[in-house]
Parts: sequence; structure tokens; C-alpha cells
Amino acid sequence: MLQIFSLDKENKFKRSENPADIAELLANGAKGVFWVDIEDLTEREIEVLANVFQFHPLAIDDCVKSNSYPKIDDFEKYLFLIFHAVNFSGPTNEFTHSEVDIFLGANFLVTIHQGPIRSIDVQREKCERNAPLYLGKNPDFLLHSMLTQLADNYIPILADIDDNMEELEDLILLEPSKEVMHQIFKMRKVVLQIRRTLGPQRDTIFQLSRGMYPEIPKKSLIYYRDIYDHMYRVYEMAEMYRDLVAGIMDLYVSVITHQQSDQQHQTNTVMKTLTIMTAIFLPLTVITGIYGMNFQHMPELNWEFGYFGVLGLMMIVGFSLFAFFKHKRWI
Amino acid sequence: MLQIFSLDKENKFKRSENPADIAELLANGAKGVFWVDIEDLTEREIEVLANVFQFHPLAIDDCVKSNSYPKIDDFEKYLFLIFHAVNFSGPTNEFTHSEVDIFLGANFLVTIHQGPIRSIDVQREKCERNAPLYLGKNPDFLLHSMLTQLADNYIPILADIDDNMEELEDLILLEPSKEVMHQIFKMRKVVLQIRRTLGPQRDTIFQLSRGMYPEIPKKSLIYYRDIYDHMYRVYEMAEMYRDLVAGIMDLYVSVITHQQSDQQHQTNTVMKTLTIMTAIFLPLTVITGIYGMNFQHMPELNWEFGYFGVLGLMMIVGFSLFAFFKHKRWI
Amino acid sequence: MLQIFSLDKENKFKRSENPADIAELLANGAKGVFWVDIEDLTEREIEVLANVFQFHPLAIDDCVKSNSYPKIDDFEKYLFLIFHAVNFSGPTNEFTHSEVDIFLGANFLVTIHQGPIRSIDVQREKCERNAPLYLGKNPDFLLHSMLTQLADNYIPILADIDDNMEELEDLILLEPSKEVMHQIFKMRKVVLQIRRTLGPQRDTIFQLSRGMYPEIPKKSLIYYRDIYDHMYRVYEMAEMYRDLVAGIMDLYVSVITHQQSDQQHQTNTVMKTLTIMTAIFLPLTVITGIYGMNFQHMPELNWEFGYFGVLGLMMIVGFSLFAFFKHKRWI
Amino acid sequence: MLQIFSLDKENKFKRSENPADIAELLANGAKGVFWVDIEDLTEREIEVLANVFQFHPLAIDDCVKSNSYPKIDDFEKYLFLIFHAVNFSGPTNEFTHSEVDIFLGANFLVTIHQGPIRSIDVQREKCERNAPLYLGKNPDFLLHSMLTQLADNYIPILADIDDNMEELEDLILLEPSKEVMHQIFKMRKVVLQIRRTLGPQRDTIFQLSRGMYPEIPKKSLIYYRDIYDHMYRVYEMAEMYRDLVAGIMDLYVSVITHQQSDQQHQTNTVMKTLTIMTAIFLPLTVITGIYGMNFQHMPELNWEFGYFGVLGLMMIVGFSLFAFFKHKRWI
Amino acid sequence: MLQIFSLDKENKFKRSENPADIAELLANGAKGVFWVDIEDLTEREIEVLANVFQFHPLAIDDCVKSNSYPKIDDFEKYLFLIFHAVNFSGPTNEFTHSEVDIFLGANFLVTIHQGPIRSIDVQREKCERNAPLYLGKNPDFLLHSMLTQLADNYIPILADIDDNMEELEDLILLEPSKEVMHQIFKMRKVVLQIRRTLGPQRDTIFQLSRGMYPEIPKKSLIYYRDIYDHMYRVYEMAEMYRDLVAGIMDLYVSVITHQQSDQQHQTNTVMKTLTIMTAIFLPLTVITGIYGMNFQHMPELNWEFGYFGVLGLMMIVGFSLFAFFKHKRWI
Repeated sequence: MLQIFSLDKENKFKRSENPADIAELLANGAKGVFWVDIEDLTEREIEVLANVFQFHPLAIDDCVKSNSYPKIDDFEKYLFLIFHAVNFSGPTNEFTHSEVDIFLGANFLVTIHQGPIRSIDVQREKCERNAPLYLGKNPDFLLHSMLTQLADNYIPILADIDDNMEELEDLILLEPSKEVMHQIFKMRKVVLQIRRTLGPQRDTIFQLSRGMYPEIPKKSLIYYRDIYDHMYRVYEMAEMYRDLVAGIMDLYVSVITHQQSDQQHQTNTVMKTLTIMTAIFLPLTVITGIYGMNFQHMPELNWEFGYFGVLGLMMIVGFSLFAFFKHKRWI
Repeated sequence: MLQIFSLDKENKFKRSENPADIAELLANGAKGVFWVDIEDLTEREIEVLANVFQFHPLAIDDCVKSNSYPKIDDFEKYLFLIFHAVNFSGPTNEFTHSEVDIFLGANFLVTIHQGPIRSIDVQREKCERNAPLYLGKNPDFLLHSMLTQLADNYIPILADIDDNMEELEDLILLEPSKEVMHQIFKMRKVVLQIRRTLGPQRDTIFQLSRGMYPEIPKKSLIYYRDIYDHMYRVYEMAEMYRDLVAGIMDLYVSVITHQQSDQQHQTNTVMKTLTIMTAIFLPLTVITGIYGMNFQHMPELNWEFGYFGVLGLMMIVGFSLFAFFKHKRWI
Repeated sequence: MLQIFSLDKENKFKRSENPADIAELLANGAKGVFWVDIEDLTEREIEVLANVFQFHPLAIDDCVKSNSYPKIDDFEKYLFLIFHAVNFSGPTNEFTHSEVDIFLGANFLVTIHQGPIRSIDVQREKCERNAPLYLGKNPDFLLHSMLTQLADNYIPILADIDDNMEELEDLILLEPSKEVMHQIFKMRKVVLQIRRTLGPQRDTIFQLSRGMYPEIPKKSLIYYRDIYDHMYRVYEMAEMYRDLVAGIMDLYVSVITHQQSDQQHQTNTVMKTLTIMTAIFLPLTVITGIYGMNFQHMPELNWEFGYFGVLGLMMIVGFSLFAFFKHKRWI
Repeated sequence: MLQIFSLDKENKFKRSENPADIAELLANGAKGVFWVDIEDLTEREIEVLANVFQFHPLAIDDCVKSNSYPKIDDFEKYLFLIFHAVNFSGPTNEFTHSEVDIFLGANFLVTIHQGPIRSIDVQREKCERNAPLYLGKNPDFLLHSMLTQLADNYIPILADIDDNMEELEDLILLEPSKEVMHQIFKMRKVVLQIRRTLGPQRDTIFQLSRGMYPEIPKKSLIYYRDIYDHMYRVYEMAEMYRDLVAGIMDLYVSVITHQQSDQQHQTNTVMKTLTIMTAIFLPLTVITGIYGMNFQHMPELNWEFGYFGVLGLMMIVGFSLFAFFKHKRWI
Repeated sequence: MLQIFSLDKENKFKRSENPADIAELLANGAKGVFWVDIEDLTEREIEVLANVFQFHPLAIDDCVKSNSYPKIDDFEKYLFLIFHAVNFSGPTNEFTHSEVDIFLGANFLVTIHQGPIRSIDVQREKCERNAPLYLGKNPDFLLHSMLTQLADNYIPILADIDDNMEELEDLILLEPSKEVMHQIFKMRKVVLQIRRTLGPQRDTIFQLSRGMYPEIPKKSLIYYRDIYDHMYRVYEMAEMYRDLVAGIMDLYVSVITHQQSDQQHQTNTVMKTLTIMTAIFLPLTVITGIYGMNFQHMPELNWEFGYFGVLGLMMIVGFSLFAFFKHKRWI
């Protein structure tokens, strides 16, 4: 679906879906700025890009593939940029990003994406409400506004990660489970993905802010530097989170190891109890067994105090063993 | 085996295996482009390289050794490139690469490799089908087409690694076995090998794309930059996978450690059961043993309620011990 | 709350809260230096920044957001700096930092912060006590004095970390608990935060010390280089602590593992005792049981030395088993 | 021991041990190239270096110390290089290196080493066999030939490491022993040593290949670049092995941990068997004990079916306990 | 304590403690070189530095604080250097360093330190013995000699670390104790401290060797480059030790883990023995218990071969259980 946004002759917002309008707008040159937004590129739109705008086949190819790396290409008559709109679902730790391809010409901006992108919807509404501001100036103003939208998307993501991290830290100390470990691993993945998406975008913005491209006027540079500063900060935070995730993994392993150590200690306590009971009562059983034998000639059986003597012997044996274990500090 | 591909006088595709043709084609100069493909370098082909093309001995040496590092050498009259064609078998996590040596001259391209290479076979078919396109222009067009083929080989490899990684992640959480660990290690190896093969190739392509070599005309540079962008992206992904493999190893160890902790917990439970049974019934055995002794003088034996008294005593002892363990929360 | 510090006509310290004074002071130009300190930015103060000082909207935006990254922006007529005042509570290992936004113009210094900052309070007192020194010179002298204060705050933090580290090291070797591990993790976090806050500040100071900005005269550069040297050293120490924290985590895990190994050893000792007792006395119980059976035809019962024979047999059995375990080195 | 190799007047190989010849050869200038090889530097040879060649004291000092770092020093009239000849014993994982000090002048090459070095012996034999080739040209040809020898020594070392690595990988999966672990650690050491020796040598060769030194003519540069390429590749491989050794250590720990987990599982199985046997038979012992007591008043003893009743009771108790453990899935 | 070393008019070594001499010596200019060594800076010496030498307050401040980072500052009329003298006690793995502050002027060298420094004592003795050599030339010769002393101090430290490392490696394989682990951690700390002290000193020497400072004449540069080479090598070795210490920590953990695994194996063996004994003899006890009961109606008791039948039954039961465990490979 292709949409064209421009100002009509009374400086009013005008929305068209007719590709034929583009040629006319292009011919206007610097007088009129327009924005073409393409959602879900089909043969018809590719036709427009190739024939009306006469974009380079390699750039169009990148738009079609839609799994490209963020970058900036200078085709002299226009700039071609690839950006990523990001999305993060805190509860499930799922990070997704979708490509936004941008062409910036002398008097036009073309954006191409698959499915709706929130940042672009927001930008469209802004245009509708305040058309002269966005469509009356150089198209780089439109670009800057959109890039700011895209860059600001990272802020809540990092806040979510920060929350999740603290939660995980607490969970690890309270009840470290396999699920927690899996969450940590997923977070590691997310942080790596953010770094990977962010790094080249930051570099791209940096290039834009250096005043190398005539499409971007000098006085706008500070705005791009501002986006760059934001991205730089987010990147540094992602770096820090990467380190922290490694730290939290170590924390997890150490907590589990500690827990193991505690359980081993408990095992020892239980084992000692068992051993003491066995070591005291088994010998006594043997003693009672001896005097329970039915031999005809067992002198002790006829002794007057034989019974009490044996009871005494059993007590001595029992207490000796008890004292022995006490001495060994098992009790 | 040496094959020569060129255009005949009617601009038709011509295939020859006669090295003698080369001298003639070389003499044609810029008028005719030709491609010499050499599979399995033997003395005869080395002869051709050294005497007909008069390539530098060091370059020929690199071709013969066939375990060289990707690089680019500028011998003024021609460029010498070493590339690696890669191959990955997902199910067994085996990564292999084979060397492709390339000479790019003013009107010729020479490729040398051991055994058939899919990318080169594909390129040959393309040439046959569309000879004027590939053999009618500057030979760098042929080179660019071939390098694109070689670079595109990495894409499915990374997709396979991604799949394997997710599979391993699931396996680790379900049933972490020694075999899984071995798979992780093998994947680590593969990712390291990809990085090692990819890094210098990316740098080589970068040099090609900078317009330093007269063999590559200005207007082709953007195509090399495109290959470079692809390679850069693949390299970055390989970097990310390296981090992820490290993460998955940590995940494995933590899952196993967790499992150990669970088993230790179970050990404790079993041990407690054993200890309780022993601690309750062994003393009772001793009591019954005592009154099973055959002494003549055992007053209790004659008491009227001695038997029931002892039964009661046993119950008291048993319940006391049971209560004790209950109190200690072992039950 | 907005406060204006300047020299009155008799070179005395003058303190005002009236924003209207600013316009006048600004008009004085290089003749009079003044410092505006703003605590807790409200609409009224933003008004002053925007309309009286006419600062760039992006800079004011950074002041309002107050979660910005340390940086330096050159707006030609003035410099805009973001710094972080740091605070560390040793006992709880809590690290906090609060933003200080600074504008440095030809004859003014503006500082903006939320809540009171100790370094700024100290500077204000210094100004009161020695007004001509701080308000009679170029405003960069005031800036330098304040930055030195902010930089010096790191020194006691690192000393505290050093102390905590040694304490943790001792604790780990004495009684490694889960709490110790948590402390280590928190310290890791603190060190990472310090690095993250420090790095860009160090770079900012470096830029100031290179003489790029007309606001900072040549002869002051050495003072900024001195701050830079301090910050560099602190950063290097933070780097070292990061390595040490990683080392201390390894130490912890190894101590716990060692402890586990010791407990396992103890388990083995206890188990052996249990097994020996059981293995010696259970067979004896069976022997006594046999001769305690009430069969009518048991020839041994009538033997004259049957009883002593059995006692002898039991001793032989007992000693044999004892010797057997002795031989196996279990005792 | 000092040996001088040169061409005599009939272009024949000439070998001398007389230091006095050197002065004469030096005086010849560019007409005659000669090579002085010094094994085991003594006072007499140091004398020659200092007085005849007039080398700088610092360079001679480095030769004497013989534990120097690979480097290149330009003393204007000659180059001073330090290289390391390497040696690796695969079976014992022992890596050794010995220093080779080289002076390269306008018409001479001086090599100094302790004990025989295989690469230098090989070079000497080459000279003898083909004297005009090596001694008739610029001395840098001799140097290049020798450096190639030294660089090629690394190739079999890496092949050995690769073999050892694969062997260790198999051993770890089959029977991970303490000895295997020690082997891994030794391999790590070797890889680190190779990197450390290799890095500065690679950089030295790089400097030689850049055409900065008049001693090395332009047309030789490609040969040095070739050595550099080899060294670069070896260095990259050493880097990869370093990563792999870290991976193999992780593999080892995970295999051992897995093994522990298996053993723990077995412990649980054994424990359950023990507990079941004890829990079933101890209560039965108590029952039989009760009816083995000798009280005069035990009503059950006179019941006609008392005996069979008790046997039945014992069976019920036994089967109930068995069923209980079956229910708990311990059997 | 302040000491002044200079040459008197007869070119003899002269030692003075009178600060008043300094002004005179300074006035001499390039004619006379002198060295001022200050041990334990007091008010009196600070006075000299500030008023006689007129050093910059920031430099003096660094001398007073004496916990500064190695660096070099160029104050145009003189250079200010901070170096660290290092000391390492092998047996206790204690690493200490003390600051040496150095001013190098046109004809003087000032050294400031707390407590005696061995390198400086050595240098003083050298001066006394060979005054014209050290005090007759440019003061940078004195500096170079002293820096060589300071740099050489690292060599025995690294040798000690190497010895300790090998010793620890052996200890770990023989009897890995908690103490060994602590030693490893301390060594890690030492290596990190060496790197931290060494890095900036190496960089400082590098700056000195680049010929940027007029205080250091061209022909001396090679001597500084020599020190730099030594420091570079030491730094690289410290880097390698850092890697090795990490490796030795891994080795320790793996040895302990292996030991645990061995102990677990032993636990299993002991457990199996216990279980077999219990499982065989407990049932036999129950059988004897049954026929030891005193019921009046127990038909088996009157059977003629009842007793032998029961003995046979017991043997069958015992052997069956033994065979069962044999079959399960527990024996």
C-alpha cells in the first residue's frame, strides 16, 4: 500500500494513493516536499521505486529482502538508509525488530516497511495535524522527527530490562529455579540483539550528523547529534547490561552451588544420626541375642544377678559409644 | 582440468580445453574477455600459469599449497585473490571450506580450485546461458558475480546454526546429556572457524570496494560495497553467535548444576526416611531382645502385666522417636 | 530555586534570587562574572534559560530530562556540559549519581541540578568566603574549581570499594555465605556503574583540556589536564577493580566448591563408619538368632561347649570383617 | 664459534673461521657479500662485533643477554633484528624458543645464536650447495631465505596442536581424568607462548615489508610480504586455538559435572534399595522379637492359630510397605 | 632530607645538604650539572621546590600527595615525571610500589621520594664512584641511568611470579587446598597491579624516546627506546601471566571438581557395600526371629529336620540375594 503525503496549493495536508502524483511532485523540485510511505512492498510499488524514482537496483533489492543490516548508502541524488524499529515484550523477554527502508532526496522522503510501524503511524498523525511544519521545510526535518521516534523506542526497552534484571536478581536469591536460568539466558540474547541492532544504527546516525551529505543542511546537524547522543547512551547501557547479565549468571551458579553445599551439609547431619543410632543399637541387639540363645550349658543364665549384669553391660556399651560420638563431635 | 570460456566471433559461448588458445586470447587485449577455470592443478596447468600468463612464482606457490589465508595481492598487471568457498552440514555441525584462487587481469579471469565448487558450477551455467553478459564486459563483472555467489553461501549456514542453537537450547532444558554438550562445543568450533574464514575475506572485499585497483572500474564499486555489507552483517552475526554459544554453555552447566541440586535434595529425602525407620525400629528390637533372654532370674517375666507393659513401653518409645523427627521437620 | 552570585561594585559577594538581575549582568559583558545556581528546575527557571540566556532548546531539554549522559556540546556562544555528581554508601554498597548541567559563557556559569549537591554547596561557601578570587576572574576558574570538587568525590569511593573488597576477601575465606555472594554481585554492579559514569566524563574533561574552546583560556588548560589525570587514574582503578571483582567471584566459587569437597569427604567417613558397624554386627545378630530358635532337634544346643564355641565363632566372624575393612583402608 | 661464508674469487663457496678475514670483506663493499654465523657468543666474538663491525653497544648487549623480545632496530648503517626460532614437542606439549640475533648491513649478514639452530644449519647447507645464488646477491636475499625457514617452523607446530586438541576432545568425552586437564592447561600455556613470540615477529616482518629500510630493495618487498602473510595466518590460528582451548576447558568441566550428576543418580538408586530393605525387614524383626519374649503371661502364645496369625500379619506389614514404596515410585 | 650532588671545581664529587647552594648551581646554567635528592618531603623542602626552583604548584601538589599515577608533564622549562619503584616479596606474594617524582631541567635533576629507594641509593653510589660520568654530562644521562635501574626491578619480579606459578601448578595437581586458591587470587591481584603500574610508565618512556622534549638530546633517544623495549616486554609478559592466572584458576576448579567426582564414586562403592550387607542379613534375621518365637503351636519346630531345613532356607535366601547384586554388577 502506497500513500503520498504533501501540501496542496493552500498549504493544506493532502493524502493520495495514486502513484501517478509522484512524477508531478518530483518535477516540482525544491518547491514542494512530499513523503511517500509504502507498507508491504508489492510489484506495483517496486515499479514506482524503479521507474518513477529511478532508485538503484541494489537499494530496491535491499528493500525487497527486508532482512538487511542498518546502513547508509549515498547514491549522490539521494540517500538510502536502513533502520530498525524495535519492539520488546517485557513479560516474555521477547525482542523483535522490523526493517524500515528510507530514501531521502532533495524534496522527498520515501519510507518502506512490512506491516504497520508505530513510530511511522505517530509521524503520519503529526503530519496531518501540523502539515506545514513537516511538509513545508526540507525533507530532512521529517526524517529527523522520524528517527527521533525510532530512537526513543529503546528507552522503555532498557527500563523493562532493568526491571526484569532486578526481579531476576531477587528471584535468584529467593528461589533459584531452572526457569529463572532460562530467563537469564533469554535476557542475554535480548541484550546481544539490541547491541547488534543498535551499533550500526548509531554509526549511521553519526555519519548523518557529520555534515557529509548535502541532503542534510548544516543547521540540522545538531539534531542528528542529539539522536546520536541518545543512541550512544543506550548502546553504553546495553554494554553494561551485557556485563551485568554475565554477572547475574555467575550469581545464579554461585547460589545453586551454595544451596548444594547446604544440602550436602544436611546430608551429613542425617547420615551422622543414622550412623549413631545404628552403631549404638546394633551391638545391643547382638548382646540380647547372645543371652536369648537356647544352649543347655550357658553358665551366666544361672547367675543370680546375670540379668541385671547384662542390662548394666548394655548400658555401659551404649553410653561408651554415645560418648565416643560425642567426642568425635558428631552430636 | 583446464577449461577456457570465451565468446567466439559470432558472440556465442565457446568452451575449449586447449591451453594453446590462451596465448591468442591474451594477445586480443581488451577486445575479448575470457575465463579460465582450473580444477585440480597439475604440472601441466602450473606450466600454463607460469609461462603463458607469467604469474608471479609466489602467487603460483599459494595456488599449489591450497591452504592459504584469504587475501588480495596486487601484482600491477593483475590482481591475485584467495577466497574460501564454505560448506556446512547442519545435522552433523561440520563446517568445511575450500580455497578458490583467482587472478583478475585486464581481459581475463582465472579461477583455480581443488574438486568441484558449487558456486563456480553455477557461474559456468550462467555464462553458458548468457554469454554476452558475462564475457562481453569487463572481467570484473564475472568476478563480482562469482563473489556474490560465494558470499551468499554463508546465509543458509547462519540460518542452520540459528536452528541448531534453538534446538540445543530446548534440549538443554529438557534432557541435558553429554552429547548435547559435545554439540555445543562443536558449534563453538564452527562459529570460530566461520569468523576466521570470514574476517579476512570481508577485509579483502573492502579493499576491492575502495577503488584502489584499476582492474575494477569505478561504477562497479557499489556492487563490491554491497558484497561487503553482506559479509559485514554475516560477520557481526557470527560474533553474536559466539557470544550466544558461550551463553548456552553457561546455561548447560547451570541446568546440570540445578539437576544435581535436585538429586541431592532427593538423596536427603531418602536418607531421612532410612534414618527414621532405623532410629525407631532398632531400639524396639533391642527391647524385645532383652525380654527374649533366657536368664533364670528376670523378675519382669513373672509380672502379670509385664507383657502388656513392655508393649506399652515399645509404643511410647516408638511414638516419642516419631514425634522427635516430626519436630525436627524430617517428616 | 534560582540563586545569582556576583560581585557588587565594592567587589563584595552579592547574592540575589531575582531573575531580573541576570539580564543586567549579561549586558555587563566581560567586566563582571556571575554564577547562577538553579536547584530543582521549574517552569519559571526554564523561562529564564530560554528567554534571558537564550539557550538552545535541545540543551534545555537535556536539563529538564535529567537522565542524560555526560557530554559536552559547543553552542558557539556558550558551552553546555553534563556532569554527574557521585555518591557511594560503603556499608550498603549503594552507588548513586545525580546530574549537574552546566552552561559556561563568556562571563557566566549556570549550574542546574535536582536537590542539593555537596560539591556545589562547598563551592558556594568558597565563593562567599573568597568572592574576588572566584567571581573576579574568567568564569572558567569557577568551573575548574567545581569540576575538581566533583572529580575528587571519586577518591573516597574507590577507597571504600578497596576496603569492602578486602573485607569480602576475608569473609569468603572464613565463612562464605549467600549474602557475601550478593555483596560481590552488588560491588560488580557498582564498579560497572562507576566506569559507565566516569568514562564519558573523563572524555569530556579531555576535550576541555585540549584548548578547543575559546571559553577556556590557554593558561587554564593545565588545570583541566590535572583533573583529566585524576579521572584517568580513577578510571584505570575502576578497570582493575572490575577484574578483581571477577577474580573474587571465582575465589568464592572455588571456596564453596572446596567446602563441598570437604563435606563429601566427611560424608564418606561417616558412611564408612556406618557400613563397618552394620557389616560386623548384622551377621552376629543372625548367628545369635539361629541359636535362639526353638527347634526340638538342634544338636549344637546340647554340646557341652556349644555356647562357648558360638561365642568364639562370633569373635572370629567379627574380627575377620574388621580385618577386612582395615585391609581396605576404611578404618 | 665464528664462521664466515663468502665467495672466493672463482665464485666458489669459501668457509673461514678467521675473524681477521672480516675486515677485508667489509672493505670490499658491495662487491662481495658474506655471512658471519656465530654460535655461542664468547669474549672473542663480542670483540669482533664491537671493534670490527663497530655495532652499537646496546645491540651487542641484547645479543649477550639472549632473552630479548623480537624487534627491529635501525642503526642507519645496518639493521639489527631479534628473532625466535621455535620448537615444539607434540607428545609432551613442550614449547621452547631460542633467540636468533641478526645484523643486516650493506654487504653482510651476521647471525648470533646459542647452540645449533636447525633453520640456520639448513640455510648453511643451501649456501654450500648453491653459493652464487645466496652469496652473490644482496644480503637481504640470504635474510629472506632464513626468515622463511624460521616462519615455516610454526606450521608443523600448529598441526601438532590441532592433533593434540582433537585427541584431548576425544579423551574428555571418553575418560576425563586429571591428567587430561593438565594437558589442556599446558596447551593453553603453549598457545599463549606462541602468540607472545609470534606477535612481535609478525610486526617486525611487517616493518621489513613496508620498504622503510634501504637494506631491503623494493623488488624483495613482496617476499617479506609473503612471510608476513604466513605469520599473520599462524597468528590468527593461534588466536583461534586460544578460544578453542577455553572451550575445551569448559567442555571438560561440563563432562565432569555431568558425570557427577550420573553418579549422584546412582547414589540415589542405591540409597532407595537400602531404605526399602531396611524399612520392610526391620519392623518384621521387631514383630518376631515380640513373640520371642519369655513373659509368662502372653495370651497370644496359647492361641491355636497365633503362629499363623503372626506370619500373616508379617506378610501384610511387608506387602503394605512394599506397596507404599512402589506407590512412591522408588521401585 | 635534602641532598645536593654536584662536581666541585676540581671535578670532584661534592655532597651538600645546604639548600642555599641550589640557587648558585642553578645560576651556573649549562656549565654545571647537579642532582637534588629529597627523601621525605617536609615544609622546608617544599619551600625550596616552590621558591628556588619555582616549580608549578600542580607539580608540587603531586609530589606532596604521593599517590599519583605515573605520567609526564612538560612545563616548558623543565619536565615533571612520576615513576614507581616496585618491590615484590615472592614468598608472600606481596607487591608494593612507591612513588618517585622527578624534575628534569636544563642542568639539574630533582628526585623526590618517601623513605629510601634502592634504585636511587645505587645511583648515588655510582655517582660517588664515577662523578664526572654522571654529573659532567647532560642531566638526562643521570635520568636514563636511574630509569634503567627502576625498569630492571621488574625482571626479578616476573621471574618470581613465574616460579610461584609453576609451584602453584604443581600444588594444585598434588593437593589443592583453600590456601592454594588464595595464593592464586593474590597472584592475580599482583599481576593486575603490575600491569596497572607498568602501563603508564611504559607510555611515559615511549614519549621520552620520541624526541619531543628538548631536555633529552637526540643521541640519547636510543637509550630510552631500549628502556621502552624492556618495559614493553615486561608488560607483554604481565599480560600473558594474567591469562595464565585465569587458566590456573580454571585448573584448580577442575581439579577440585574431579576430586569431588572421585569421592562421589567412593561414596557409591561404600553405599553399595552397606546395602548388600543389609539386604542379605536383615531377611536372615527375620527368619531366625520367626523360629525363635514362643508359640505353642508351631508345627515346624517339631519336624525332625526342621532346623536343618531352616538353615538351608537361609543359605538359599542369602545366596539368591548375593547373586542378585552380583547380577546387578554392584559387587
